[in-house]
Amino acid sequence: MTYDKFDPEGQKIQLFTPGPVYVPDWILKEFSKPNDTHRCNPYRELHGMVKKKMQKLLHTKDSDILLWTNSGTGIMEACIRNLIGPDDKAIFFPCGAFGERWANMAEECGKNAVVKQIEWGKGVSPEIVKEELSKDKYAVVFITLNETSTGIMNPIWDIGPIVKEHGALLCVDAVSCMAGIDIDVDKWGIDVVLASSQKCFALPPGLSVSSVSEAAFEKAKTVPNRGSYFDFITMKKKSETNETPSTPAIPHLRALNKMLDHILDEEGPENRYKRHAELAAHVREWAKKQGFEVFSEDGYHSNTVVTIRNNLNINVGLWVKKAIEKGFRFVDGYGDLKGKTFRIAAMGEITMAMLDEFLGVITTLLAEVK
Amino acid sequence: MTYDKFDPEGQKIQLFTPGPVYVPDWILKEFSKPNDTHRCNPYRELHGMVKKKMQKLLHTKDSDILLWTNSGTGIMEACIRNLIGPDDKAIFFPCGAFGERWANMAEECGKNAVVKQIEWGKGVSPEIVKEELSKDKYAVVFITLNETSTGIMNPIWDIGPIVKEHGALLCVDAVSCMAGIDIDVDKWGIDVVLASSQKCFALPPGLSVSSVSEAAFEKAKTVPNRGSYFDFITMKKKSETNETPSTPAIPHLRALNKMLDHILDEEGPENRYKRHAELAAHVREWAKKQGFEVFSEDGYHSNTVVTIRNNLNINVGLWVKKAIEKGFRFVDGYGDLKGKTFRIAAMGEITMAMLDEFLGVITTLLAEVK
Repeated sequence: MTYDKFDPEGQKIQLFTPGPVYVPDWILKEFSKPNDTHRCNPYRELHGMVKKKMQKLLHTKDSDILLWTNSGTGIMEACIRNLIGPDDKAIFFPCGAFGERWANMAEECGKNAVVKQIEWGKGVSPEIVKEELSKDKYAVVFITLNETSTGIMNPIWDIGPIVKEHGALLCVDAVSCMAGIDIDVDKWGIDVVLASSQKCFALPPGLSVSSVSEAAFEKAKTVPNRGSYFDFITMKKKSETNETPSTPAIPHLRALNKMLDHILDEEGPENRYKRHAELAAHVREWAKKQGFEVFSEDGYHSNTVVTIRNNLNINVGLWVKKAIEKGFRFVDGYGDLKGKTFRIAAMGEITMAMLDEFLGVITTLLAEVK
Repeated sequence: MTYDKFDPEGQKIQLFTPGPVYVPDWILKEFSKPNDTHRCNPYRELHGMVKKKMQKLLHTKDSDILLWTNSGTGIMEACIRNLIGPDDKAIFFPCGAFGERWANMAEECGKNAVVKQIEWGKGVSPEIVKEELSKDKYAVVFITLNETSTGIMNPIWDIGPIVKEHGALLCVDAVSCMAGIDIDVDKWGIDVVLASSQKCFALPPGLSVSSVSEAAFEKAKTVPNRGSYFDFITMKKKSETNETPSTPAIPHLRALNKMLDHILDEEGPENRYKRHAELAAHVREWAKKQGFEVFSEDGYHSNTVVTIRNNLNINVGLWVKKAIEKGFRFVDGYGDLKGKTFRIAAMGEITMAMLDEFLGVITTLLAEVK
């Protein structure tokens, strides 16, 4: 069996990719259950349960939970369309490919935005944010919590209060870390935090989630040309009756409800976050043991994806290909970092035993690609 | 077992709703198979297969197929954002709630649009289109092929050539009829036709599809502020390598591929369209036999959803509720038509035997709600 061709029976390859990730059987089973429609009580009950559990996960009483049938990218655009008014200036702090993509979207949406570029591999320090915010008046601040291209995790817990002091709204991309690290929306002062189903939630792709603060909704009301599908106000109005404006991805919602039960009541959030931190630390140790350097700077290492510098000058593409033949997928560097780095992610339901098996296989293969 | 509460084991209720609809077990099974990522050969193969099969289904050699992880509403907005330029005027021909929603989106997106309202229950005649297009110069024409609120099917096969004569682009909402009636994109002169997974394709919600003509892509290149997620050009560029700009709903794509095999090679498109036409005709006959009147005007009856006038002045809400208790769901009238009409849809994989069983049950219940 080759793992590099479409398999009608389902892809059995084991994923150590930064999303989509390995989905356990008990979640896949949720996807094979019959669904009802979305304009009925059973759906509203499900929607309401998911919202409550998400509020618990994100430690928020003040923010509403919006459930989106689109990838996380869509919510990133929603933040821009809803929160940057015609007379506003926004600021982005990209420290990798996904942060830069977010900043580009502001231009695509015709918004006025300043981009404070952070060198790839470095984190966004609270000091930089403080300095930039003291220079000008910004209505909204956009920061990536976990940058999937560089393996950087930014200290939003320290940055949030600074943003609040300056009276700006704070939008946080947590696509590749929500449910993998603890996020405290109310304490950190986050107005919008967004994530996708196919990362630390260990679901297939097709759903994304966000919390949105009252302040963000109030702001959105004043912003013209928000469009339709990504309009916070329309979403909020429907959310009040536990519905969505258009037909939602019901199978994903059913599965998310199950996963939230698992996280909150079975594994426990603290155990889950500890497991993710240990898995990432283990990958970094393994990398150093092989003679590699970790790409992300100390103090800013991600707990969900590790980006590793190809300082041994091996053939990364060949290594990845050989691993696929053995039934494992990990990934090359992103964009400009292709060949210069590689990435190993342990997200969602990956265990230390699964990680060790995988690292054992690619360690053996390493000799063949040096 | 009550069918009006969330069931963790899956909703066993039988759906005669205009979407989401009944999903057969062999499609649900596709949803429980493990997935790979979206940046790999197996995904590209799957994506490419789906595109080819969709082109065959829609009879198009000239249009590309775009696969969207959002509900059909998102593509409706995409048509507006991509095709109406700042100096353009567009025209909408709404004949029900979903056509009106589309027209409203143009305003929400800040576009210049004329709305030619058609009375609910009436169809959009080729004559009306001809008359309106002779009055002014329109860049784009928007028409609903199958209006889910009123049960109207509009003759795009006759309207398309008129739109082309006037040099306008034609966008068609086929959300609730694609894969249920024959759509000939190239022959009818359609620039964009869009649909959702949860209607005649008999998939769960979460995916939508469209064909987009070369002329539409060329036009989009000239339109500023198209946004990001719904940008035709970004989608087209990624489609060329059988990918999507952001992570797609992989389970839905896998299932759509399976369903397209079933439609094209097992049931056969002609048989499928004949079955849908027969089911709808059967519902209309049943309605008349009970003393009801069909809401849609003759010559414009939908082949997928029947809207029936409540001329017997029964308690529609109670009737629907009693049917739910028996394990069947059909729906009240939409919006202003609530209580005044009700709707029965037989879409996707519904058979005549299934429909007869359902009609038998609600006929018995009818006596209790008169």
